Amino acid sequence: MERYFYPDKSLWAGICKRPVLQQEELTELVQRVFEDVKSGGDEALLRYTREFDKVKLTGLRVTDREFKKAESLVTQELKDAIHLAGRNIEKFHFSQMENPVPVETSKGVVCWQESRPIPKVGIYIPGGTAPLFSTVLMLAVPARIAGCNEVILCTPPDKNGNIHPAILYAAGFAGVKNIIKAGGIQAIAALTQGTETIPAVDKLFGPGNQYVTAAKQYALSLGTSIDMPAGPSELLVLADVSANPAYIASDLLSQAEHGQDSQVIFISNENEMLVKVEKELEKQLSRLPRKQIAEKALENSKMVLMSDNSEIVDIINVYAPEHLIIATEDEDFFIRNIRNAGSVFIGNYTPESAGDYASGTNHTLPTGGYARVYGGLNMDAFTKKITFQKISPEGLKIIGSSIELMAEAEGLLAHKNAVSIRLNDINHQDEY
Amino acid sequence: MERYFYPDKSLWAGICKRPVLQQEELTELVQRVFEDVKSGGDEALLRYTREFDKVKLTGLRVTDREFKKAESLVTQELKDAIHLAGRNIEKFHFSQMENPVPVETSKGVVCWQESRPIPKVGIYIPGGTAPLFSTVLMLAVPARIAGCNEVILCTPPDKNGNIHPAILYAAGFAGVKNIIKAGGIQAIAALTQGTETIPAVDKLFGPGNQYVTAAKQYALSLGTSIDMPAGPSELLVLADVSANPAYIASDLLSQAEHGQDSQVIFISNENEMLVKVEKELEKQLSRLPRKQIAEKALENSKMVLMSDNSEIVDIINVYAPEHLIIATEDEDFFIRNIRNAGSVFIGNYTPESAGDYASGTNHTLPTGGYARVYGGLNMDAFTKKITFQKISPEGLKIIGSSIELMAEAEGLLAHKNAVSIRLNDINHQDEY
Repeated sequence: MERYFYPDKSLWAGICKRPVLQQEELTELVQRVFEDVKSGGDEALLRYTREFDKVKLTGLRVTDREFKKAESLVTQELKDAIHLAGRNIEKFHFSQMENPVPVETSKGVVCWQESRPIPKVGIYIPGGTAPLFSTVLMLAVPARIAGCNEVILCTPPDKNGNIHPAILYAAGFAGVKNIIKAGGIQAIAALTQGTETIPAVDKLFGPGNQYVTAAKQYALSLGTSIDMPAGPSELLVLADVSANPAYIASDLLSQAEHGQDSQVIFISNENEMLVKVEKELEKQLSRLPRKQIAEKALENSKMVLMSDNSEIVDIINVYAPEHLIIATEDEDFFIRNIRNAGSVFIGNYTPESAGDYASGTNHTLPTGGYARVYGGLNMDAFTKKITFQKISPEGLKIIGSSIELMAEAEGLLAHKNAVSIRLNDINHQDEY
Repeated sequence: MERYFYPDKSLWAGICKRPVLQQEELTELVQRVFEDVKSGGDEALLRYTREFDKVKLTGLRVTDREFKKAESLVTQELKDAIHLAGRNIEKFHFSQMENPVPVETSKGVVCWQESRPIPKVGIYIPGGTAPLFSTVLMLAVPARIAGCNEVILCTPPDKNGNIHPAILYAAGFAGVKNIIKAGGIQAIAALTQGTETIPAVDKLFGPGNQYVTAAKQYALSLGTSIDMPAGPSELLVLADVSANPAYIASDLLSQAEHGQDSQVIFISNENEMLVKVEKELEKQLSRLPRKQIAEKALENSKMVLMSDNSEIVDIINVYAPEHLIIATEDEDFFIRNIRNAGSVFIGNYTPESAGDYASGTNHTLPTGGYARVYGGLNMDAFTKKITFQKISPEGLKIIGSSIELMAEAEGLLAHKNAVSIRLNDINHQDEY
């Protein structure tokens, strides 16, 4: 990890720089697959699965028998873990549902907003080495709480045409019955445009490799909404001497193991902490199965010594980390002043991996500095707010002439007339 | 207006079809202007303003003197109207600010979310015939309530290099001091990339013509967030015999006057209402200054006779109107069951234009069926939610083993280790 000691502000941009992503130009491939899936439907999907995933499927949908078999393959221990995590995710996301609160802005003018579900959502879960069943919970549980009419989950099959049992079990827990064996660009194309088996969805969720990311961006350009722009994982840890260097190193490594393009940053006001954490990193790294990946990620990573708390807040807000651990005695100062971060973990016993799995918060979070603008997924991502208003004749008398004046000044006379025609009647009635 | 009598479901797609937009391919022009503004900065902006807006500016920023002059040019009546509208918008949007509610998902595991402002927002206000000062209020008031650090407003100058006084006055009311005389693609390019005078913003807001829309889409592809996809205005009115045909016609016309590509739909369960509304439309249309526009829009528009309330709800949800007026005796049934709409206006004295100007709700709303997925602008658009969590040693003992199991099953051993290393210490301490 590169080290910076009391860096001048002119160096901040360099410190906050993310590793440059080597993005291939995939537009042509994406367009071709979208067109093929549009014209060929299920058949095209099966063809691409043969070609890319090297498996000849007999059917696209996971059957009841496959669900049952998955249930028998997941250990009771893991089932219990999924239940505990799932229930916490349920509790936290359910707590975000708001009751409409009508506001009387002027007398007789009552306005409120209500959340209603996004009708059809598509969830993409990557295949590959790690079965991301935790992401199934993070996306499907909020979709069920929101009341989305249809939830379709796409995930690529393995070489034998099967889906990992933990993915099926987590989907079952979250109430998702419609699981499609399809991955990559073709899965996103199917969810975006629909096929015989797969309904076109309103919004796409879920992580993926560069093909999936490019396909989601293309879907967005066609008018289908997506969760958020995807990017490599990040963690910024801020710690003073009250923190435990071994814990900090374990947290830094938990993000570093995600991918070679992950980035971790450690900031402290004590050089001693930098030294100790560096030592712990070496020690713990050697034992990790994903050592090589983590090692590469640490090359993109930085340690920074800074003394002034308000400067520390500033550089964190400039970086806008996906994950932020605050392990300092004056945590309140930082909680209050952090403006840009995805998810914040406070204290020595709040590892970032708690939020990845089981504390209840969502692990789908903004990366690459998007935390300036986007929050992580929450119930807002699965719903939209509709405004309602009801005005009484008395209310229209109070705000009516303002509407008339403003509409006229904007040159929109029909807008004015919609008020005038009612006010005339109201005033006329008042006379009698 | 085309009429449909008790249409079979097979006809719904046709009824719900929006007018096809003739969108020019503007990508090349947009790219060129973005590149010019990137390399040329303010100078390029001034050059484009000479070229496109036919005015040679001496400075880009509106001066204090210009603000003062605007104040003297706006009538007291209009000022009062702006104040009433502005205060109602303030009240309604302020009521949307939530206090963080910590949730203990498991004992010792406390999670919550907090809204924090998006740091820098850019607001675009079109020039042209109508000075949209109401949109200034709709965008700048919530930005101020959110606490955005910087708000930059761009709007094109008139032939004399001036901004309409009502726009400046509304901006002043909303606390926006940084107003740039620039419009079109070049303004969006400047807000996206920054110039000497204009800081690059995190998110772009505001309506505009097809050039502005294309530029915003391009900005989105570069990573700058935007409010929502833009499209022509729409209104669906649902009314039974308890409604007033003259009021309904005035509402339909208020949307029809927006543009030739606007669309209005009228649904009733009484043929008599269709006939009366048609007659009122003719009568009122003849008196409108924007008659020709409204007439064109009515050609895209439809009247539908339907009898079954649940079918009526269904077709409204399929259409997903930007604006929805419900003027029926059983309004509660519809309020409860509408799932897709931007803003809903209830009863005979709630004209859609109330929401455009002064009731307090936002008038920036999803069109083109996007109401399935997007709500109108509200405080969520100017903030993002950050999750926080704090776990006690006891809490980690409760959820820790679930995290360990799930991380291991996903093949992420460093994630597991961040918990194990803490649990070891906790259990060790417990022994003593």
